[in-house]
Amino acid sequence: MRRSIATVSLSGTLEEKLGAAAQAGFDGVEIFENDLIGSALPPREVRALTESLGLTIDLYQPFRDFEGVNEARLERNLRRAEAKFALMVELGVDVMLVCSSVSADSTGEDARSAAQLHRLAEAAAPFGVRIAYEALAWGRWVDDYRHAWRIARLADHPGLGVCLDSFHILSRGHDPAGIRDIPGDRIFFLQLADAPLMPMDVLHWSRHHRCFPGQGAFDLTEFTGHVLAAGYTGPLSLEVFNDVFRASDPGRTAADALRSLAVLEDEVGRARDLEGTKAPPLRDAVELTRLPSPTRARGYAFVEVAAPGHSVQRVRGALAALGFSHTRDHRSKPVQLWRNGDAHVLLNATDPQLGHTWSDEAAVTALGVEVADAGKAMRRAERLLAPKLPRRRDPAESVLHAVAAPDGTSVFFCPSDPAEGEDWLADFSSPAQGSGGTDGVPLTGIDHVGLFQPFDHFDEASLFYRSVLGLDPDDGTELAAPDGLVRSRALSRGGASPRIALNASLLGRGPGRDARGGSQHVAFGCEDVFAVARSMRRGGIEPLRIPDNYYADLACRTDLEPVTIEHMREHGILYDRAGDGEFLHFYTPMLDGRLFLEVVQRKGGYRGYGAANSPFRMAAQRAEASR
Amino acid sequence: MRRSIATVSLSGTLEEKLGAAAQAGFDGVEIFENDLIGSALPPREVRALTESLGLTIDLYQPFRDFEGVNEARLERNLRRAEAKFALMVELGVDVMLVCSSVSADSTGEDARSAAQLHRLAEAAAPFGVRIAYEALAWGRWVDDYRHAWRIARLADHPGLGVCLDSFHILSRGHDPAGIRDIPGDRIFFLQLADAPLMPMDVLHWSRHHRCFPGQGAFDLTEFTGHVLAAGYTGPLSLEVFNDVFRASDPGRTAADALRSLAVLEDEVGRARDLEGTKAPPLRDAVELTRLPSPTRARGYAFVEVAAPGHSVQRVRGALAALGFSHTRDHRSKPVQLWRNGDAHVLLNATDPQLGHTWSDEAAVTALGVEVADAGKAMRRAERLLAPKLPRRRDPAESVLHAVAAPDGTSVFFCPSDPAEGEDWLADFSSPAQGSGGTDGVPLTGIDHVGLFQPFDHFDEASLFYRSVLGLDPDDGTELAAPDGLVRSRALSRGGASPRIALNASLLGRGPGRDARGGSQHVAFGCEDVFAVARSMRRGGIEPLRIPDNYYADLACRTDLEPVTIEHMREHGILYDRAGDGEFLHFYTPMLDGRLFLEVVQRKGGYRGYGAANSPFRMAAQRAEASR
Repeated sequence: MRRSIATVSLSGTLEEKLGAAAQAGFDGVEIFENDLIGSALPPREVRALTESLGLTIDLYQPFRDFEGVNEARLERNLRRAEAKFALMVELGVDVMLVCSSVSADSTGEDARSAAQLHRLAEAAAPFGVRIAYEALAWGRWVDDYRHAWRIARLADHPGLGVCLDSFHILSRGHDPAGIRDIPGDRIFFLQLADAPLMPMDVLHWSRHHRCFPGQGAFDLTEFTGHVLAAGYTGPLSLEVFNDVFRASDPGRTAADALRSLAVLEDEVGRARDLEGTKAPPLRDAVELTRLPSPTRARGYAFVEVAAPGHSVQRVRGALAALGFSHTRDHRSKPVQLWRNGDAHVLLNATDPQLGHTWSDEAAVTALGVEVADAGKAMRRAERLLAPKLPRRRDPAESVLHAVAAPDGTSVFFCPSDPAEGEDWLADFSSPAQGSGGTDGVPLTGIDHVGLFQPFDHFDEASLFYRSVLGLDPDDGTELAAPDGLVRSRALSRGGASPRIALNASLLGRGPGRDARGGSQHVAFGCEDVFAVARSMRRGGIEPLRIPDNYYADLACRTDLEPVTIEHMREHGILYDRAGDGEFLHFYTPMLDGRLFLEVVQRKGGYRGYGAANSPFRMAAQRAEASR
Repeated sequence: MRRSIATVSLSGTLEEKLGAAAQAGFDGVEIFENDLIGSALPPREVRALTESLGLTIDLYQPFRDFEGVNEARLERNLRRAEAKFALMVELGVDVMLVCSSVSADSTGEDARSAAQLHRLAEAAAPFGVRIAYEALAWGRWVDDYRHAWRIARLADHPGLGVCLDSFHILSRGHDPAGIRDIPGDRIFFLQLADAPLMPMDVLHWSRHHRCFPGQGAFDLTEFTGHVLAAGYTGPLSLEVFNDVFRASDPGRTAADALRSLAVLEDEVGRARDLEGTKAPPLRDAVELTRLPSPTRARGYAFVEVAAPGHSVQRVRGALAALGFSHTRDHRSKPVQLWRNGDAHVLLNATDPQLGHTWSDEAAVTALGVEVADAGKAMRRAERLLAPKLPRRRDPAESVLHAVAAPDGTSVFFCPSDPAEGEDWLADFSSPAQGSGGTDGVPLTGIDHVGLFQPFDHFDEASLFYRSVLGLDPDDGTELAAPDGLVRSRALSRGGASPRIALNASLLGRGPGRDARGGSQHVAFGCEDVFAVARSMRRGGIEPLRIPDNYYADLACRTDLEPVTIEHMREHGILYDRAGDGEFLHFYTPMLDGRLFLEVVQRKGGYRGYGAANSPFRMAAQRAEASR
């Protein structure tokens, strides 16, 4: 299907918006009126520019407060509309969006509105323009797409149809199944936007918090399925009002946007496959572009930590204290493999300068994820606009398949079955005369990785990891750090690893603060957190010190035995409970600027990350830093 | 009255919060429980620290989900409470805030809740602790302060009273006059928070968007008056959950907070004065601290523009083209007085390094405002924690009274009557053999000044200008700039000058972007905008170019004559209308990085600033910058 984006979804001048949309690979755009009014380009030059960029203009929008007015106002509105129709001819666009009226002056009789819209469509016809009538979620009289369609049907003009906007429909909780009752050729346009569920007035929600499909809480796969089942053949078009996207690099936002449509189209196709013969046939004009099927990441093959010279010893010491052994060395690079049970850490002593802004501090620089078919995973990732990594960035040279995540972290696809010929371990020499704690308590693997995100790219990162690794995002939460709120969202394989916790400052504080202020960590799973904590202390590393006040509070709000709480206090172990599940976890001190390690024990099916303890962990880190 | 602040209102560690509160001059604090739990300081040390800082701890908060539970849960809740009472003894605090339950497990019979709260108060008594029961606006059963008071009265225990929180009461639209029906000695605590009117769920609104009194839309003067009339004698305490304050420098936030209480207390006193003998007497313990009465700014005496060497010629040229004449020179500094009618601009050719981060660009560095009594205005400003400026910063040395605004702009109080002995003009020599356009069209004065604010300090600046200059803030708006939304609020003397338009990036983009990305301007009033525009062009300055598309749109949405629109187009004049009022305005090009000038003509009582045109002005400036 054709893919479009409204210019209001991107930042910059009109020229910059158009350039970004074309660069990302969109087929068309919706021109948001204020973007044209604010542009020095005359309409004909806008048309010429879009043509030279390989874009069509698919919609001119919005035209407001047209219907339900008195005769004098109707004449004025028609005059205003005709000027826009003439403009549209110059632009080369043949569909105008007309929003349901919000005017206090308007009246709500359907017959009158229908008659007036009929006149509008009649006036548009000589210009070759058609009218797409849309029910705004906050329309004064018409706030339901079914009502807009009743009026359009009543108006009975071939040049009048409806525009469907997923936000306006799903934000109100209206059942989208009714879309199937609208003839497809009367759906003149389809606007797609997702949004997180937020408890606020729908207008405020719409103007500030829309996001791209797959980044919010709406089921756009089902929604789009209904629209296609109705017989719609126009473009899938994104109209997203978002405070952050408005202020971010338009090229990057456009790529994020196109990725969201690629995933959506693919998911609509898969949903049809599942429906099988029951799925209504698509109109001839519609072809759903499919992606290589998701190869869901099965877990972590490894995590790479790069540590510059001044911190490499400290990271090694912490790994050793956690029972890791230095088991192998890379054949050609200064990369060591450290292992405890199924947890593999690659310690890269080269400076982690690539793709990261924090080149002078230790950082998580790569995730190796196990997949059934690394080649297919790579093909899918590339179709999702993930930048392929140059070979020189691979710490494990046998792995051919690697891409860069939006935050600059490298993601390596490692075949679960090394017989596939891409055994990353093969790059590493036979067991070294290992340093490190061979008497360590076993870890069960990498439980999760915590990655701090640039403020602007939180939603982009979430969609990236979801679509490229086949992970499921949770609903997200907010954490109170000593220096402000942190937005947090975790992704996992249905609650299992590979789990990734994404964090970002709720208020953008500039790249400096984003990169420095937020920390990264690797969390290891275990079956006896007390044993690992004791072992770490024997290894010479004290845990992050948690205040006694925390344990006093724990004693009065839980039924934990005093002796248990005393042991927790001794080892800085934090506690959370959800239903029958329990979570015990502790932290190493900050190893270098912004990197720390965590050890967690999950009991009784606990699926969270101890978010309730995060404010105390962050306060303790702040206290540690100021000591 | 005593003044307190909840630790949750400030950023940082507990020690930093306490230090900031003490430094600003607060008398006490509310300890927010998570701040204590996250602190390495044991309760006794927290007590010792507060004592050493001269602070009392006035409230421990919050205790949640206590009442309306079954017997087993009640016992657990009492056990939990007793542990907190013991902690409170160590802290030296004798009032605990208990919020109305939000638990799905609770039941809503008043008699049962009252009996359980009676037991809680009974359990608290041996510890010397009293219970302040508060109706949360989103409480499951109790969401109205009158209901909380009914339950407290039913419970009938001397150790049980209510806590009143202005946000919980005013956000729900509950009439605060009913507070007078509560005996003052049963109001155990008063929490104050303001908020802008926002169309969202009250919980979300409360957790993210509270602000200090005078920064939002609630009438806290009336509210506090009711509480004092009831006989309350405790502290005025601020409990403000705000995303920005959580992430800002706590010392600065605390000063902003204390300023808000000083203004509030003063306004409560003035409201009582107005009521005269009808005002109910205050309890003996209450003394309202008063400020010197506001000396409302009457207009602009001058605006100072500092221009570094590379741009001073360009600024001069623009002033000359706008009909300003260089009429005087400062006796000892490189400062020129430029004048057109009642508009005075001081052009300072020294580098504007002080107080500003944009030292290498031209900037508005000072506002001279006319007041009836400069000495009194200064005393009031100092009581409002406005930093007094050192003499060396005064371009007009005769003016003794100057303070720094939160954004670094200097504010000079200039007596309306120079007979007072502080005639700033006296610092300037007799008329120079003036350069500049003596044939210029007269301007009527300085219409407004536009100042870009650091993101963190927008509300602070608004309160500062309101309270120090006696201006009235409007409701504010949001403007769509090409690189993101801009928050805007104007202050004026009842719609007249001195008007100040404050702007800030809606999302903080770091100090670099705040300082660079936002512009400053000085707008001059006139009675014939076309004449001034023609004159400027004759003077060799082309106006900011507004796209033809703007005028095409203007033609179809207004009844303006085509010839008028053509003249507007020719001179880059923008148009707005509100009711019978009309606004015509144009801009100079950017004179240096971020400074430009504007000329406006108001007709028919138009009171706005042409906000609808701001997106097009900003787009045009963006286009200009990229040419």
